[in-house]
Amino acid sequence: MTVNCTQLAGSGGRDEVPTSSIGSPDDNERLVRAGLSRVVEPGDLAALKTFAGLDVLEIWELLQRNGPRTERWSARLDDARPERDLERAAAAGVRFVIPGDDEWPDQVEVLADAGQLTRRAGVPFGLWVRGAANLRQVLERSVAMVGARASSSYGEHVAAELAAGLSDNGFTVVSGGAFGIDAAAHRGALAGSGVTVAVLACGADVSYPTRNSALFSRIVESGLVMSELPPGCSPTRLRFLARNRLIAATTLGTVVIEAAVRSGALNSAGWADQCGRAVLAVPGPITSRMSEGSHLLVRERDAVLVTNVEDIIEAVSPLGTRLTSYPQAPRNPIDDLDHDLRRTMDAVPVVNPAPAARIATTAGLDLETTQHCLETLADLGLIQHTPSGWHLTPLTAPP
Amino acid sequence: MTVNCTQLAGSGGRDEVPTSSIGSPDDNERLVRAGLSRVVEPGDLAALKTFAGLDVLEIWELLQRNGPRTERWSARLDDARPERDLERAAAAGVRFVIPGDDEWPDQVEVLADAGQLTRRAGVPFGLWVRGAANLRQVLERSVAMVGARASSSYGEHVAAELAAGLSDNGFTVVSGGAFGIDAAAHRGALAGSGVTVAVLACGADVSYPTRNSALFSRIVESGLVMSELPPGCSPTRLRFLARNRLIAATTLGTVVIEAAVRSGALNSAGWADQCGRAVLAVPGPITSRMSEGSHLLVRERDAVLVTNVEDIIEAVSPLGTRLTSYPQAPRNPIDDLDHDLRRTMDAVPVVNPAPAARIATTAGLDLETTQHCLETLADLGLIQHTPSGWHLTPLTAPP
Repeated sequence: MTVNCTQLAGSGGRDEVPTSSIGSPDDNERLVRAGLSRVVEPGDLAALKTFAGLDVLEIWELLQRNGPRTERWSARLDDARPERDLERAAAAGVRFVIPGDDEWPDQVEVLADAGQLTRRAGVPFGLWVRGAANLRQVLERSVAMVGARASSSYGEHVAAELAAGLSDNGFTVVSGGAFGIDAAAHRGALAGSGVTVAVLACGADVSYPTRNSALFSRIVESGLVMSELPPGCSPTRLRFLARNRLIAATTLGTVVIEAAVRSGALNSAGWADQCGRAVLAVPGPITSRMSEGSHLLVRERDAVLVTNVEDIIEAVSPLGTRLTSYPQAPRNPIDDLDHDLRRTMDAVPVVNPAPAARIATTAGLDLETTQHCLETLADLGLIQHTPSGWHLTPLTAPP
Repeated sequence: MTVNCTQLAGSGGRDEVPTSSIGSPDDNERLVRAGLSRVVEPGDLAALKTFAGLDVLEIWELLQRNGPRTERWSARLDDARPERDLERAAAAGVRFVIPGDDEWPDQVEVLADAGQLTRRAGVPFGLWVRGAANLRQVLERSVAMVGARASSSYGEHVAAELAAGLSDNGFTVVSGGAFGIDAAAHRGALAGSGVTVAVLACGADVSYPTRNSALFSRIVESGLVMSELPPGCSPTRLRFLARNRLIAATTLGTVVIEAAVRSGALNSAGWADQCGRAVLAVPGPITSRMSEGSHLLVRERDAVLVTNVEDIIEAVSPLGTRLTSYPQAPRNPIDDLDHDLRRTMDAVPVVNPAPAARIATTAGLDLETTQHCLETLADLGLIQHTPSGWHLTPLTAPP
């Protein structure tokens, strides 16, 4: 381990690091955070307990002392080479963003309150980031889109369409790096205005799955690939689960497109809920198992059912600022008629004219009322008078 | 008009008609109600106002006096021939069920409270019924299924499946007589245990649409076709809307399968809500306009999203009596492992065995913990030990 704890002793904890927009935390803190990111597994419950109340420099000191409380981490600590990790990252175009950096997205701090959150919370020690965008800026107005790897063509179509629409409305799409809904969401966003963020459960320099490496290359041209794991790390089941908390915490809301009843996407939705973010679900055919998770969220967990981009924007925007226009079919002039007018209208023949008395009987109205209604309908251009009576005005076919 | 009001004078109002199971209201009342059913248009607002507080015999007397308040109905009154209507009905296999009859479904009386309901409420004067079933009995446990005429094959499939399932669970399916969802629901119920009720906006002897006449013939073999309109009446736009209140009032809940944003199905759902019945909506692809109405109901009107027969039964059953089993995927033994066990498991190679020390480093755990975890995992049969270390137990491929 190349960072000597005594070297860092005087540099102060995270609280003293300036957080202004110019600010850049000192190199020692960056090294310590890189080291911790290598040693401590994301969302490790034992770490959350052992390190509660300590700043990163204090955690580092505690680990260096190598007492019985920290034995769990000693093997990884021996292997940790944070300077080499930072160099290796830089060589792969990956930068390490930490609190105090311009790019640090403050909203991930919601994960600090591990007491109120359940398993595997915790703020990442830093974020390993690859790509052209500024992390803080792109995440400012961002929406997570998550769903199944084994998605249907319906799910992929919907993910791509919604992502493109969000992208065109200035929202960054955030997703994982998997096949299926994740990839479709990224592709949709790239087809839109183009900014999308892939949050990985492996190193930001690792293309997993390999067949998505071309997609990752396109993403980093305008957006970002990010991870809390240092370069070279492989994905594991638990890292996927820990990764989900980052997707939820960094975004304004999480949209579940297609998800099985027990799935990573529902885990992400649970994290979004715990982080106080909007949980949205796109419905689908009830004949598709892949939509079961979305329907479950709406039925059992009060997720907001969303069917288009406007619904999503409304749900993730401050209350009342972006109201979805209530869907409206084109109004038919007949809809605005009062009861008697509609009854009269219903009783007027389409072609062969009928006298008012016959129309009155058919309509079940008295003659005077009927006469009055017929004149009103004629004024509206809905019916026409001929010497032998009334008939409907032939309608111009709709376009 | 063949019923003389003075003839009826001593026979008393509806309140005196016995309502016991043996009861049959007297013939005069039946004639009066048949006459009113011919003269007064279903849900006529003017009728609701003019006749408020009067029983049917009083209404009939008022109409006979033919004063300025009732001029509206005089033309139809002159033409009314209730005895002939009852004979004509009987000839067509149609009976006229009125309050006090064994078959009268008391739940339609919910429509009496026109003050609390909006437009076009009102209890029907009677129900013209055709078919083998007992009206009261079949409606006791009944669910309305409504939806678009221009339905998709998805909608029709879903309507038929859900109707068959409800039917198999002892529920009567109630719908209109239209193409699309209505017809699919009836067909589904007929394919199930078989009892289904078509509520028409025309006479119960009229096959509208004509192409559904074979369907109506099958329905009446075990179920019912019913209407509040006397024999021979044609459907009109307003009659469809008035008919919708009957579908809502007679059933425990209304399931909307596919519906455009402004549609008869949503009108039915509105009635169900006003009658205090459950409003349920089946989601569908967001790419289909036909599911927009269902999604709107869930989003904007707190309809219950339902995806299967159990959901529907739960929603229409007394609170807590029929709980849907929470959907569960088969549990994976790995799901039950605690955090350290999962991390250890994640670090164990699939094929090439690794020693405990290497697994400990990969897992980020101390050696002692790792050793303990490896033994537990081996006890669970999840991993295997070889002279050169540990590897995962080869899994039997799922079926």
